[in-house]
Amino acid sequence: MLKVAVVGASGYTGVELIRILHNHPEVAVTTVTSEQSAGKKISAVFPSLRDRYDIQLEALEPEKIAAKADIVFTALPHKAAMAVVPTFLDKGCKVIDLSADYRLHDAAEYASWYEEHLNPELLIHAVYGLPEVRREEIAGADLVANPGCYPTSVILGLMPLLKEGLIDTGSIIADSKSGVSGAGRGAKVDNLYCEVNEGFKAYGVGGVHRHIPEIEQELSLLAGKGVVISFTPHLVPMDRGILSTVYATPKKGVTAAQLQSLYEEHYDGEAFVRVLPQGNFPSTGFVRGSNFCDIGLTVDQRTGRIIIVSALDNLVKGASGQAVQNMNIVCDFPETMGLELIPIYP
Amino acid sequence: MLKVAVVGASGYTGVELIRILHNHPEVAVTTVTSEQSAGKKISAVFPSLRDRYDIQLEALEPEKIAAKADIVFTALPHKAAMAVVPTFLDKGCKVIDLSADYRLHDAAEYASWYEEHLNPELLIHAVYGLPEVRREEIAGADLVANPGCYPTSVILGLMPLLKEGLIDTGSIIADSKSGVSGAGRGAKVDNLYCEVNEGFKAYGVGGVHRHIPEIEQELSLLAGKGVVISFTPHLVPMDRGILSTVYATPKKGVTAAQLQSLYEEHYDGEAFVRVLPQGNFPSTGFVRGSNFCDIGLTVDQRTGRIIIVSALDNLVKGASGQAVQNMNIVCDFPETMGLELIPIYP
Amino acid sequence: MLKVAVVGASGYTGVELIRILHNHPEVAVTTVTSEQSAGKKISAVFPSLRDRYDIQLEALEPEKIAAKADIVFTALPHKAAMAVVPTFLDKGCKVIDLSADYRLHDAAEYASWYEEHLNPELLIHAVYGLPEVRREEIAGADLVANPGCYPTSVILGLMPLLKEGLIDTGSIIADSKSGVSGAGRGAKVDNLYCEVNEGFKAYGVGGVHRHIPEIEQELSLLAGKGVVISFTPHLVPMDRGILSTVYATPKKGVTAAQLQSLYEEHYDGEAFVRVLPQGNFPSTGFVRGSNFCDIGLTVDQRTGRIIIVSALDNLVKGASGQAVQNMNIVCDFPETMGLELIPIYP
Amino acid sequence: MLKVAVVGASGYTGVELIRILHNHPEVAVTTVTSEQSAGKKISAVFPSLRDRYDIQLEALEPEKIAAKADIVFTALPHKAAMAVVPTFLDKGCKVIDLSADYRLHDAAEYASWYEEHLNPELLIHAVYGLPEVRREEIAGADLVANPGCYPTSVILGLMPLLKEGLIDTGSIIADSKSGVSGAGRGAKVDNLYCEVNEGFKAYGVGGVHRHIPEIEQELSLLAGKGVVISFTPHLVPMDRGILSTVYATPKKGVTAAQLQSLYEEHYDGEAFVRVLPQGNFPSTGFVRGSNFCDIGLTVDQRTGRIIIVSALDNLVKGASGQAVQNMNIVCDFPETMGLELIPIYP
Repeated sequence: MLKVAVVGASGYTGVELIRILHNHPEVAVTTVTSEQSAGKKISAVFPSLRDRYDIQLEALEPEKIAAKADIVFTALPHKAAMAVVPTFLDKGCKVIDLSADYRLHDAAEYASWYEEHLNPELLIHAVYGLPEVRREEIAGADLVANPGCYPTSVILGLMPLLKEGLIDTGSIIADSKSGVSGAGRGAKVDNLYCEVNEGFKAYGVGGVHRHIPEIEQELSLLAGKGVVISFTPHLVPMDRGILSTVYATPKKGVTAAQLQSLYEEHYDGEAFVRVLPQGNFPSTGFVRGSNFCDIGLTVDQRTGRIIIVSALDNLVKGASGQAVQNMNIVCDFPETMGLELIPIYP
Repeated sequence: MLKVAVVGASGYTGVELIRILHNHPEVAVTTVTSEQSAGKKISAVFPSLRDRYDIQLEALEPEKIAAKADIVFTALPHKAAMAVVPTFLDKGCKVIDLSADYRLHDAAEYASWYEEHLNPELLIHAVYGLPEVRREEIAGADLVANPGCYPTSVILGLMPLLKEGLIDTGSIIADSKSGVSGAGRGAKVDNLYCEVNEGFKAYGVGGVHRHIPEIEQELSLLAGKGVVISFTPHLVPMDRGILSTVYATPKKGVTAAQLQSLYEEHYDGEAFVRVLPQGNFPSTGFVRGSNFCDIGLTVDQRTGRIIIVSALDNLVKGASGQAVQNMNIVCDFPETMGLELIPIYP
Repeated sequence: MLKVAVVGASGYTGVELIRILHNHPEVAVTTVTSEQSAGKKISAVFPSLRDRYDIQLEALEPEKIAAKADIVFTALPHKAAMAVVPTFLDKGCKVIDLSADYRLHDAAEYASWYEEHLNPELLIHAVYGLPEVRREEIAGADLVANPGCYPTSVILGLMPLLKEGLIDTGSIIADSKSGVSGAGRGAKVDNLYCEVNEGFKAYGVGGVHRHIPEIEQELSLLAGKGVVISFTPHLVPMDRGILSTVYATPKKGVTAAQLQSLYEEHYDGEAFVRVLPQGNFPSTGFVRGSNFCDIGLTVDQRTGRIIIVSALDNLVKGASGQAVQNMNIVCDFPETMGLELIPIYP
Repeated sequence: MLKVAVVGASGYTGVELIRILHNHPEVAVTTVTSEQSAGKKISAVFPSLRDRYDIQLEALEPEKIAAKADIVFTALPHKAAMAVVPTFLDKGCKVIDLSADYRLHDAAEYASWYEEHLNPELLIHAVYGLPEVRREEIAGADLVANPGCYPTSVILGLMPLLKEGLIDTGSIIADSKSGVSGAGRGAKVDNLYCEVNEGFKAYGVGGVHRHIPEIEQELSLLAGKGVVISFTPHLVPMDRGILSTVYATPKKGVTAAQLQSLYEEHYDGEAFVRVLPQGNFPSTGFVRGSNFCDIGLTVDQRTGRIIIVSALDNLVKGASGQAVQNMNIVCDFPETMGLELIPIYP
């Protein structure tokens, strides 16, 4: 059994990692950390875990933790992650980082959207962990930058079109909607039940959300040229789920049937991407709790635009599930191990 | 006191009409109809009304109803409305029709999206009841076609841009999201609590939603030329509210500040359109229960696109509130009469 | 126009007071205070109010505020209220206090559930503001202690039984359920959307909730002897509403029909208590946004127990609506003025 | 691999059975039936299953199904179940029946709450499948009557008290609250999203809910004498979960600490009952998706009453999970096999 540490276990991605890893036959979660709850049992923070995970939360002492873990998942806020990741690597741990700290390859880009990077040399060392795009690189990585939730939905939605060069890359608009767990577990008025419930809103409007550089970096690599997109995130009154509605103009006329074939071929053999039958479109409700990304697509006959709709569970394929998928690849386990869970419905 | 009949009072727009009209000092709801619940008190169908509206639901006999009403609100499904509206008009009633039956001016267009129209001659007689666009025509109308919920949000969001000719009219994408009350009160599995809750989905993807011809008709009139748009509706797990995120490419560079001024001037004096301060964007939560349409806007510096976000309560400004606003105009009451309610929050 | 100050206007009861008073023809809200948001417009804190209430929030300086208000609503946490109420009274303002500070008549009781009272002499001076119980005393009061939300639902549910001496007063169990707005607008992890949504729980189990002494005080006065009850509050994943299911054993056999008559007679003429027809039971959904308390009742034939179910909107009849009702009585306005709003449904 | 048939697979308990059995290493779901959707793939009815379960729904032909199944789960409405169960038994299948048809031992009792029983001789043959009560009988059964969701929560909550004879059996009040999935997937106005959301209500008030005879039968057996209770169910606007708040008067004084020990000892070794630490009470949110029943308890010092709060997921421990637990016992698999899933949170 590989020993796993979950660093930052008192947030939603942390507890989700534990839920998923509990189902994994080859690893055991042996160490969990939390700054604000160190000393408490994790089951006191998340009573859902009682009788299954009653281990104690520790303070984040990287060297101590590295000494007892083979794999470290860092589920920390950005900046906090890059402060400790180098130590884990130095001590020989494999690291799957769920923060944004190693997703961008370019230090200047990181600085312009976040702040100065503490260890910019690792930016090219880390592998962007979207298995459907770069499975082979991930296999040899010791530091995997686990993608953001929005980027996963947008990139998987557009990959076939960009690889085939079918669309005007300046025409992409991604209108994305997320459940509230994506906002984390911090005590903020904005995320109170009564502030969120029965309301739907856009935020980060106008090209200012920090997931944009990550999306554009990956889309550009797929397209083989610079891609700039419009991206608008929205908040949905529900716990889990991201759905992205993506619009793009094809270079020349294309039919829905042609696109359907393209997507089905492209994702043939991918365990976690389900291309829905023509005329079907996804709902976050049908991927909840699972590692699936569901994709539906069509062509608007009246405007000629391609419309792609992709849906995933932001805490699973958008975070912890994908992290486990990456761990499986890094550790040479079957890629679906521990991730075969069927969505919970309703 | 004018006597009002609400035809089709057992649906959500019906009960909302009653709620709003209860607050109106110049009219009294004296007649309510329902095919499936005729004979019952309306308070048996909607216990919220108990002790305030205990009148009996009648079957829909147009001549009988016309005889005892000055104003008739038809809150019926399409087709059912056009079967009775002519009778109400013949008998001298003013009609505010909340169905889709008189919104399109062109009978062929109606036929292609719905079915053959029963009284196509009324299509040019009816006035499309968006007061912010054609207040004066409404004032003289005896048949007002109350706009759809999605169209109201999209048209109000785009009107200043189109009137000023600032955008490439082929570039418009409206990504709209609605609460569940928009789907009506019919007993369908798709609208069950457990089917909708904790799920977010697109529907009518690819330019097939019946609100499209209505939106395009009005946008075309505003632009002075044919406008074709991409429109994708989505279902949000909440009772009320529509939010539309609208993307458009300006003909030439424009700043957010310029747009802000344009919108503030354009909607200056409009009681129910609130242009939010720059950098603010609406939430459906802040218009719930009110007749407001809130609009926020910006320019995405990176792509040059204009982004407009508009929000309204689909049952109020998107249906019954706007219907009362139209009634006020038709009857020469102050336009805000009965509609001064502040949004309910939370 | 009477001038009204809302002290503590940045919470949910504060904004609800403003919503309701906006509908009141005889008063105007001229002063609003907030410690944390002083200097901001209240519409910046609650965008729902934009264009209707854009007045500025002030710091809480009691003398200054008293000088420009006829009526003061104190919507503060307990302790904060009793620190300022005496000043308002000294300066000649009428005070409707929405906190718990003046609800108990006994200083020792207050101390045992809360802390030492700062002005215990006011405890017997204040009038417990449940109009259906003591309308006449309220009429002459200058300090009204507005009842708690749970107590309103339980007391109204039991009043006829206790006044008639029909039940074993030792047998009362009140199992109450509240929406989340009752927990206030403070930034706490426990009230985050994802912590509350899709979960239902009890809290304050075992006779420890601070509304207990208030309920028992009033029930004892109605019964003419000491009443001790079991009371368990629960949290429901919804914004608004309280529903109490109350169990009691009759002294001798009683039929549902007899109880129905008793309740209908008892509440005959009460504008805001709706005794539902036999066999009907309330839902919080049918009182939302209104000042109604709906009551349904029956007798369990198998056990002989009486079961009363009462429902109200915790922010209206359970707080701000009742406060306005009290203001109307104190100021000799019609008791329903500004409170005629029909529940919003859905 | 044992072959499993899920009869009635297009409802919520059906799809939940499939979700759980997918995780079970010793069985395979090979047959699924649905009257209204026969001929469709089950993944067309529940897109959550796509790519994992794409088998076709069959019509309910008992002999044909029996021929290809070792175990049959009947997830049918009452009456429909007893029409087919005898055939499955005759053909040698083991049956876990999730309907109410075999839960009562007494045919007259069944007739008085439901209708005439079609095969009353099976009522004493069937075993009431609450493993924590009668594990050994279940082991030898060929027909297990899977308990109702409410009964499971109430019986597990009271078992230790009744077995020890600690309470006045006439004093029991169970106030229970359920999520909406308990109402099934039928197309009814009452279960529409907008009818349920933001509302909380009681139903079946006054001792008329059909789960009562089942609860009383089991409580009476535990107590060794007839037990009659008051039971009130409520509907909570959430998908899953049941929480029961149970009140009982002890025969003589008892402390919370004594009860705590009693419950901990009683449930020691039970894999799916978690007795929470003193002072902790359950939330449905912390058992969601799992087979746990969480129990918290205390004594109200002021009234002497015992208060037990139990929570479970109505679709898992309240239906399909418990059915799999029963199957494990019947088939001599480890009792927790396939049921080790940690609750999903949030």
